[in-house]
Amino acid sequence: MEVEVFETKERVLADNDKAAADTRALMRGQRTLLINLMGSPGAGKTSVLSRVIPALSEYKIGVMEADVDSDVDARTVAALGARVIQLHTGGLCHMDADMTRRGLDRMGIEGLDAVFLENIGNLVCPAEFEIGADLRMTILSVPEGDDKPLKYPLMFTISDLVVVNKLDTAAIFDFDIDAFKSRVLALNPNAEIIAISAKTGDGCEELSAFLRALIEKRRRGE
Amino acid sequence: MEVEVFETKERVLADNDKAAADTRALMRGQRTLLINLMGSPGAGKTSVLSRVIPALSEYKIGVMEADVDSDVDARTVAALGARVIQLHTGGLCHMDADMTRRGLDRMGIEGLDAVFLENIGNLVCPAEFEIGADLRMTILSVPEGDDKPLKYPLMFTISDLVVVNKLDTAAIFDFDIDAFKSRVLALNPNAEIIAISAKTGDGCEELSAFLRALIEKRRRGE
Repeated sequence: MEVEVFETKERVLADNDKAAADTRALMRGQRTLLINLMGSPGAGKTSVLSRVIPALSEYKIGVMEADVDSDVDARTVAALGARVIQLHTGGLCHMDADMTRRGLDRMGIEGLDAVFLENIGNLVCPAEFEIGADLRMTILSVPEGDDKPLKYPLMFTISDLVVVNKLDTAAIFDFDIDAFKSRVLALNPNAEIIAISAKTGDGCEELSAFLRALIEKRRRGE
Repeated sequence: MEVEVFETKERVLADNDKAAADTRALMRGQRTLLINLMGSPGAGKTSVLSRVIPALSEYKIGVMEADVDSDVDARTVAALGARVIQLHTGGLCHMDADMTRRGLDRMGIEGLDAVFLENIGNLVCPAEFEIGADLRMTILSVPEGDDKPLKYPLMFTISDLVVVNKLDTAAIFDFDIDAFKSRVLALNPNAEIIAISAKTGDGCEELSAFLRALIEKRRRGE
């Protein structure tokens, strides 16, 4: 008698990819850009949003704040004038495509030019789950160290845009930006890398311009 | 007809707790202290070991370096004279009790006074999995922010010792140590909190003294 082998993880990821593809089609149809914003706890995901959202004030922006618990960041982001919804994962370490879609449906994406999903602070799990984003944007902060692509390679492999934050502290933490860039590009030759300081504003114009170009493309239906 | 409901996660955690209890008994029998060292990517787990191991040079120390990939930290720690083994989780975001036990068996704990498991850099998943440690030691670095107990409450709830690292940068990052302590103690009134800078050495004597007292207790069979 043959016994069926059920590859749980593969099946979960396959179902997830299907849900992600549905979301991708939805966003394209609505001409709304979806950005999966990832990074370690304290890398500065919310601080970067606090720079980028005012810089993109000509657009309507939505933010889904995913947290294990709390609504600290949602209150910060709501004060910027974005449409905001708080998502609680109930202890889960990442957002998946289905949870993301429920969040989008609940928040409502009508009239929005772009939606940021601020994922759980974690360099491991969110990298494994596609959510249907048009841009996978990962923030690595200088104090974390320039060796992190060696230790968390999947995150840097799947990221379209890597933002180096807290650049104003590079000297204090002996952060070698060239070594960091080489390590990212060795994993992912197509990665865009932009270094900024959300605190001083350095580099934030370049980052906003990069995002503006993507939003404009999406508005043209691309 | 009744259909059996199999609570996968609960069963996994129950099996894990049993394996953790076995490890706890083994360590006590060998008079070896087991420390589960946790924290975000870049919080300074390896840097803190680089301070603590030389300060505890009267003891034989083992270190299990858990990584998704790479052996960067293992080479650093081996240079300190500790017995070291590199564990690869194969993409998994945490160590569980079974993986920990296999690591202990493979490295060998005979003659060791203490073993550190340097867990995967992650403030979410490792908090859910007991490994049988005598001390759950979590490092939070100043640049991550003093609000992290609000956002990752489980990790701070289950930690016996919280080490605040990179204290030399507190002014740069507007880190409020009193607010941080209050947030930790609200979750976990019994937590020990020690603030250090692995870079300057500040506070490292207090941390080493705290660990020394636990190692001595274990040597007496407690």
